[in-house]
Amino acid sequence: MVAPGWLSLSNALTAIEAAAVLAFALSGLVAAARKRLDAVGVCVVAGLTAFGGGTIRDVLLDRRPFFWVEHAGWLWGLLALCILAMTFMRARHLSPTLRAMQWPDAVGLGLFTANGTQIALAEGMPSIVAVLMGMITGAFGGVLRDIVCNEIPTAFSDHRPYAICAFFGGWTLVGAQALQVPDGLSLLLAIAVTTGLRAWAMAVGFTLPRWDPEEPDA
Amino acid sequence: MVAPGWLSLSNALTAIEAAAVLAFALSGLVAAARKRLDAVGVCVVAGLTAFGGGTIRDVLLDRRPFFWVEHAGWLWGLLALCILAMTFMRARHLSPTLRAMQWPDAVGLGLFTANGTQIALAEGMPSIVAVLMGMITGAFGGVLRDIVCNEIPTAFSDHRPYAICAFFGGWTLVGAQALQVPDGLSLLLAIAVTTGLRAWAMAVGFTLPRWDPEEPDA
Amino acid sequence: MVAPGWLSLSNALTAIEAAAVLAFALSGLVAAARKRLDAVGVCVVAGLTAFGGGTIRDVLLDRRPFFWVEHAGWLWGLLALCILAMTFMRARHLSPTLRAMQWPDAVGLGLFTANGTQIALAEGMPSIVAVLMGMITGAFGGVLRDIVCNEIPTAFSDHRPYAICAFFGGWTLVGAQALQVPDGLSLLLAIAVTTGLRAWAMAVGFTLPRWDPEEPDA
Repeated sequence: MVAPGWLSLSNALTAIEAAAVLAFALSGLVAAARKRLDAVGVCVVAGLTAFGGGTIRDVLLDRRPFFWVEHAGWLWGLLALCILAMTFMRARHLSPTLRAMQWPDAVGLGLFTANGTQIALAEGMPSIVAVLMGMITGAFGGVLRDIVCNEIPTAFSDHRPYAICAFFGGWTLVGAQALQVPDGLSLLLAIAVTTGLRAWAMAVGFTLPRWDPEEPDA
Repeated sequence: MVAPGWLSLSNALTAIEAAAVLAFALSGLVAAARKRLDAVGVCVVAGLTAFGGGTIRDVLLDRRPFFWVEHAGWLWGLLALCILAMTFMRARHLSPTLRAMQWPDAVGLGLFTANGTQIALAEGMPSIVAVLMGMITGAFGGVLRDIVCNEIPTAFSDHRPYAICAFFGGWTLVGAQALQVPDGLSLLLAIAVTTGLRAWAMAVGFTLPRWDPEEPDA
Repeated sequence: MVAPGWLSLSNALTAIEAAAVLAFALSGLVAAARKRLDAVGVCVVAGLTAFGGGTIRDVLLDRRPFFWVEHAGWLWGLLALCILAMTFMRARHLSPTLRAMQWPDAVGLGLFTANGTQIALAEGMPSIVAVLMGMITGAFGGVLRDIVCNEIPTAFSDHRPYAICAFFGGWTLVGAQALQVPDGLSLLLAIAVTTGLRAWAMAVGFTLPRWDPEEPDA
């Protein structure tokens, strides 16, 4: 007996990916709303957050076409999402929405990191470059969002583990492939490590050890 | 009887393009002056505003050489413009200059949008990607200018239609080409729609519908 | 009698280059510390400062692999540097470190400028584009650092000659190659002019002529 097509692993992955893109886009949307950008700004910042990390990775690796060129439907989806949000979202929805999206965001970080690292490995990049590309894929959408919104990027300044989860997830993938773990399993491991670390850090309120050079030690 | 060479359509287009680049460069120049950048900053910001949008488009489409590499004379012209401006412009010139440049800027937006959209269509991009490339060509020079000047990009935050005029102009070009309107005419239509919308919006003081999620509706 | 291998010119150049990358990375590190970024932000900003200029140049010239992909050891070195700095540096070290690094920084500016200009000339770029690429290689790492740290780039706003030294150094290389000066000598000349100008400007406290359009001349 064969499972029906819409239940396949590939469909499940697409659904998870859509949830991740949605989570990233919503974080851009809420940031744009807080800065009181206009309709154009809301769409651009949401789009940068959702697709910016993968686009920087592809520019650095000189890969074409971009994800959002090959599957231009995502751009339409993003546009629809922004219009819907601007029509129906109110201030009292913003914070609960962001809180609710933290979990898909953690999954998205895992997916994007594993995906970006594997693409770079397939292009023959050295391990540390591949891990860096995974981190860029996962975290630089948010960095672009914050630069356009004229803020210091949260990923670099809030002392909560984000890119560093991607760092460990990327190395998990590199290690698994070096040990000849099958592709699907090593991807799953990388996603599990990245997302698990991020979820654990959020759950226990873990913060990165501070480097506070101003401490009075002189 | 043949019109003299310097009266040809191609020369007219080059003249309009020069006026548009001039308008963009001047807007960068005035922004740099307001932030009290030094001579190097003035030149760089003027150059980013004038050539940045087309350069981002070309990097995304993986096209080389850039406009300003193929016609390096534009870089000399920009340098001369900045030196002249720094020699002769005074505070009392800044605002009138910016106001006077609004109309060439609107024409420049139309030209750059039509040009960028057509280049992307010629590279086989999907319609929405081509329109996006047109918007980037027209509006992202100003976005780079504002990021370097440490401001939230005006194009995303002043609630005046700018990139959205490029959006409609780009779709005009896509539609005209789908209806097999000849190339020259469809370009002219796209320029007319973009520039016309922008000029109309400036004339009547139209603002984009606000998304103000903070309104007291709870 | 032959000099031992580790005394060769190439080794000397590598040592100077390492000092320059170190100087650039440290300036990023200190900027990140002042903004109180977390460990991830410190590493990213240090890396952007050290490798960002050359990476932008390579993206614009469509060159691959990047320096830090071909020699991935530099990424490990950077990571080690950041961890060491975060472990051992204290507030009272920051300013003296920056002051001490001004001289390697000036040498780095010269090296990166000469290198970037020559690469662009070898790709057949027009002279002014090659000079621009040299300036980008030397100065845009710091520009990226300041954009991420949410500041107006120092290179554009502190009225001290930096990019402009690279400008003259780049033209020195272009001129020397036009006069068929041998490659090694013209590179040395370009480095000497760039670094010399920068060192001289620092020594005498030279500032760029101001463009102050607000002066009361009306």
